[in-house]
Amino acid sequence: MSEIRKHYFLDRHCIIATGRAKRPSAPKACNDDIPSSTCVFCSGHEEETPPATSVYKKGQVLKDTDGQRVTGWDVRCIPNLYPALSPDAPEAATSGFEVLRGYGFHEVIVEHPLHGSRLHLFSDEEILLLMQVYRDRVMHYQSQEGIKYVSLFKNWSKKAGASLDHTHSQLIALPLLPSEISVELQAIRHLAECPYCNIVKREKGSKRQIYENSYFIVIAPYCSGVPYELWILPQQHVHHLSVLTDEMLFSLGDCLRYAVSRLDATIPELAYNYMFFQTEGNPEYHFSARIQPVTSIAAGFEKNTGIYINSMPPEIAADHLMDRA
Amino acid sequence: MSEIRKHYFLDRHCIIATGRAKRPSAPKACNDDIPSSTCVFCSGHEEETPPATSVYKKGQVLKDTDGQRVTGWDVRCIPNLYPALSPDAPEAATSGFEVLRGYGFHEVIVEHPLHGSRLHLFSDEEILLLMQVYRDRVMHYQSQEGIKYVSLFKNWSKKAGASLDHTHSQLIALPLLPSEISVELQAIRHLAECPYCNIVKREKGSKRQIYENSYFIVIAPYCSGVPYELWILPQQHVHHLSVLTDEMLFSLGDCLRYAVSRLDATIPELAYNYMFFQTEGNPEYHFSARIQPVTSIAAGFEKNTGIYINSMPPEIAADHLMDRA
Repeated sequence: MSEIRKHYFLDRHCIIATGRAKRPSAPKACNDDIPSSTCVFCSGHEEETPPATSVYKKGQVLKDTDGQRVTGWDVRCIPNLYPALSPDAPEAATSGFEVLRGYGFHEVIVEHPLHGSRLHLFSDEEILLLMQVYRDRVMHYQSQEGIKYVSLFKNWSKKAGASLDHTHSQLIALPLLPSEISVELQAIRHLAECPYCNIVKREKGSKRQIYENSYFIVIAPYCSGVPYELWILPQQHVHHLSVLTDEMLFSLGDCLRYAVSRLDATIPELAYNYMFFQTEGNPEYHFSARIQPVTSIAAGFEKNTGIYINSMPPEIAADHLMDRA
Repeated sequence: MSEIRKHYFLDRHCIIATGRAKRPSAPKACNDDIPSSTCVFCSGHEEETPPATSVYKKGQVLKDTDGQRVTGWDVRCIPNLYPALSPDAPEAATSGFEVLRGYGFHEVIVEHPLHGSRLHLFSDEEILLLMQVYRDRVMHYQSQEGIKYVSLFKNWSKKAGASLDHTHSQLIALPLLPSEISVELQAIRHLAECPYCNIVKREKGSKRQIYENSYFIVIAPYCSGVPYELWILPQQHVHHLSVLTDEMLFSLGDCLRYAVSRLDATIPELAYNYMFFQTEGNPEYHFSARIQPVTSIAAGFEKNTGIYINSMPPEIAADHLMDRA
């Protein structure tokens, strides 16, 4: 079981997963390489996970029951077996410090039934479906009692924190708005114009743009913290996945697929995280998806200052990704 | 050459090291294992580094000259061969966005002449000398024109970002106060009591304390973001290394050595970063040194929310470190 502890005096939190404590020298089964024949995310292994909360199959949205699992699915959403937060978390122990019980949800979205599938090779139908699932599941958890933020992200490859190599995303629903978002919101409220709308205006057509389609744009941000960082921004002001039409969702998925395919072509087998930045109750916020490849280590200087040293200027990263250099 | 780029609209910065751009697939010599016989930090290899800016030898502080290097030294401070910032950085290119030239200093502190030396095995004299060097070098760079913050840190082991395995620390002098510190300062100014003095009061004797001596205390903080995180705090309000007497410096070094020795005894060969938090011009700030072991990966969730999931409660970490469990 978990608790959400507040920093002694700053608006920052950490999740202490009290039930998972083991010495780091203990074996960690979830980090081992798993051959596909025993991968629990693969089609045919449905019995080996908890019952799915939502199963997408041929245009329908189904649910597992205790006795029977849906097979032949396209996308499968299951509770995380080692959840960071849980809906039935007990009250946190009294400590004299600020703490919340570890209430929340933690779901895995298995993006494809086949073990070897890769997001950048998804068909148009597959990438649209995945974006629809993202929208559905974020909206589902956003509407649960006490949930203030739904974090949607993908860790690709062990170096980026993935414990299983079958392509999947994750979603953690939180009972608080994280400081990363609230700091941005505060800054946005002090500005006359949406700063992200301004970024789109200024970066569109710049040497840092790598792609655009009907509704979205992909840029290597001017202030990239890590090599080959990419941001996907809606060209018009949109604050949350829930307001995207299917046409806009496809446009988003197309950008995500394009970005990942260019990263993979430039640096084969690159590890990356991508994350969705959005907040439902705050229409002044501007939605974005951000991809951060993992090529270097945040070390003492970054942990001391919050300033990242990036040896790859985004202008040159964009040249590499566009095959211009 | 580098530039310091500001985020589009937040008070955050990154350092873009424009002169070091290479595709990540290119070989990185500085990350390879170096046998001690060819280690440039070892005693006897002084000619293979830039001239030292400061050499500590038998109670004296000397300097290399272009033609002659000091040998037989105890601690040796040299300019980083691949500096993140440099005193002769050119003006940054005009971009339409906020940017500073990459002005600053980047120094390596070689802590010991012998390749196999380990900080937690330093003698009393060696640990005191290292703390004196830390104080001297921070004060030296803090007094340089235009320097607003000196980041002092150690990356131990490749997993924590060290490129060479001969024990060393680093110092990067910056022309701005990093947001990590300014956010804390703002919070501190709104409080009636120094929050760190309050932490010392509340954690002293708690189950999260792992050590104390005359002037300092070592705790596993209530809000530990990573397993086995440790903070070293002066018991009386002190804002900066520059105000520490030699007696207090020894007390600090003793805590650091004790903390690292307990980490090493608990998890042999543990990788870690330690960082010094301080700011010279702001006496309301409370000095700390913080040790963050590297046992897990900050992945998509952490990058989305700033909230760390820590599977090791600090109370249990303290038990392990104290051999109580």
